[in-house]
Amino acid sequence: MKGKKQNKKKIITTIGGGTGQFVVLSGLKEFRKKFNFSLKAIVSMADDGGSTGRLRDELGVLPPGDIRQCLVALSESSLTMRKLFNWRFKKGNLAGHSLGNLFLSALEKMTGSLEKAIEEISLIFRIQGEVIPVTLEKIDLVAELNNSEIIYGQHNINTSKKIRKVGIKKLCLSHPAKANPKAVEAIKKADLIVIGPGNLYCSLIPNFLVKGIVESLRESQAKKILVVNLMNKIGHTDGFFVDDYLKIIERYTFPKMIDIVLYNRKKPSPLLLEKYKKEGKPPKFRKVKGVSAKFYGFNLLSKQIYQKDPGDRLYRSFIRHDPKKLAKAILKFL
Amino acid sequence: MKGKKQNKKKIITTIGGGTGQFVVLSGLKEFRKKFNFSLKAIVSMADDGGSTGRLRDELGVLPPGDIRQCLVALSESSLTMRKLFNWRFKKGNLAGHSLGNLFLSALEKMTGSLEKAIEEISLIFRIQGEVIPVTLEKIDLVAELNNSEIIYGQHNINTSKKIRKVGIKKLCLSHPAKANPKAVEAIKKADLIVIGPGNLYCSLIPNFLVKGIVESLRESQAKKILVVNLMNKIGHTDGFFVDDYLKIIERYTFPKMIDIVLYNRKKPSPLLLEKYKKEGKPPKFRKVKGVSAKFYGFNLLSKQIYQKDPGDRLYRSFIRHDPKKLAKAILKFL
Repeated sequence: MKGKKQNKKKIITTIGGGTGQFVVLSGLKEFRKKFNFSLKAIVSMADDGGSTGRLRDELGVLPPGDIRQCLVALSESSLTMRKLFNWRFKKGNLAGHSLGNLFLSALEKMTGSLEKAIEEISLIFRIQGEVIPVTLEKIDLVAELNNSEIIYGQHNINTSKKIRKVGIKKLCLSHPAKANPKAVEAIKKADLIVIGPGNLYCSLIPNFLVKGIVESLRESQAKKILVVNLMNKIGHTDGFFVDDYLKIIERYTFPKMIDIVLYNRKKPSPLLLEKYKKEGKPPKFRKVKGVSAKFYGFNLLSKQIYQKDPGDRLYRSFIRHDPKKLAKAILKFL
Repeated sequence: MKGKKQNKKKIITTIGGGTGQFVVLSGLKEFRKKFNFSLKAIVSMADDGGSTGRLRDELGVLPPGDIRQCLVALSESSLTMRKLFNWRFKKGNLAGHSLGNLFLSALEKMTGSLEKAIEEISLIFRIQGEVIPVTLEKIDLVAELNNSEIIYGQHNINTSKKIRKVGIKKLCLSHPAKANPKAVEAIKKADLIVIGPGNLYCSLIPNFLVKGIVESLRESQAKKILVVNLMNKIGHTDGFFVDDYLKIIERYTFPKMIDIVLYNRKKPSPLLLEKYKKEGKPPKFRKVKGVSAKFYGFNLLSKQIYQKDPGDRLYRSFIRHDPKKLAKAILKFL
């Protein structure tokens, strides 16, 4: 590489699942050319709720929901693709299924693998980046609580209200699963790794439970950013401070993994907080000692108020990151 | 147009539905450039069986099945598109649904009209031609038999075994429906109109029951070709001669409408006939007097033996026209 200019295309790899990853990818996508980087999205495969859960049960496919959201975020015309793929049937036997989930599951059955399905869709819809299931094995998320109670399945864990009260002793997978080699590569080759935002126990940590992910994070030379959620989740992270997110993530990876913690320092309006109080409260920032990660607060809040999709049977957050503000904050560290 | 060279792009309009139209469009598509014509497919909207019937019932959409087949036939990469759109779920609540049907129905619900849905799909999948629902109104096919019995719905008519025995007094729609203006235009502007092959009572005639179609056929200057089916359908057209098809078509349109009747004169092998004897026998050709249409017999038979799609709950013909042979025969008259 001697003598070559330092304009090699960089790689940003995101790790997550769900709406959080959709937001971060939507934002970053817009800056690909300006900052000359490509995007790789590593997606949790533990989802078993709603349309995704039914497709897993009935067809034996891998969970399509989070993959779908990432594909939509990275599609060239994300508006059409979003409309199309996120559209949900509202009546009959199909009620609750999003077209994208059906499309992905059908393609997985047809081609014999979720990876090939993603490849085909990426071609048809001109996806700008790579969407990578963290594992290609069928897994379920299992939580063992401090009172020895076992909660089986991501959906059950997600909807449990007592996790915070009783405390999680151990979050693990139903059986050991190996990382998708593409996920390992995306971590090792990354210049920047973005973890979150997203449901801490249900979207973020499941990625680290897959064998090979933490190992490759250790080897990776990338700067690692944790994007802290806007709101604590009732029953899961009530009363969390910003640094609590870091603590939990590093508990499931390794100490001092995270270089940078990004958090929102703009308070949602009292009206919004009141309206959506069942979403919990924002995590507060406090100064902590003995932590190597650096904390940066920005205004990351979206002004848009999100509406619940009437066909969607799952609960999703209404207060969201602004994709552009979040991307700009992340790109300060590329 | 004086002085202009006679190389204006011609228009071939097909009228039909089901697998027959798929075959004729697949064949014609390959010759578009060589013969400089564009293709328009007018599709029956009376289907109510299988996956299509369930989607009509549950979602209140227009029947997607025949539209899907035409889109597949006209897609640039018909192999991928065919695999994708014709692929059927085999398990669970989704069993029997083809992905294309779900895609079309979802897009219809999303955009508010089947026409917009077709437009969007045509863009995404680079469709080479125009697929036109004969009407945009919800219709059902109704048969009144000679014994005054009423059979309601295309699927029930299709599966009835006594239609030939008792005889159809009148085939009509459940209520009057107006033609899609695009279908009227496609007929009026056509240079060549191809009717069939296809299920006589269930795929071809329903098109003529829509108000405005026969009127525009009368006005159209196009040469009109009837492609006669390879096999008579048991319970519907047993013992039909080639000219019987012409007779029925003209009964539901107007006398002397058809200029050219194309029929297959290559006998299927005894093995094939035996293997698929439940499909009935080929219609025989006989000379008839007092008919203005000209009859042309060609070898139109496909050598390929078609297999039933395991997810498909409907019965479809195994002995089919060869798309290329059929297109070549049709194009002799352009």
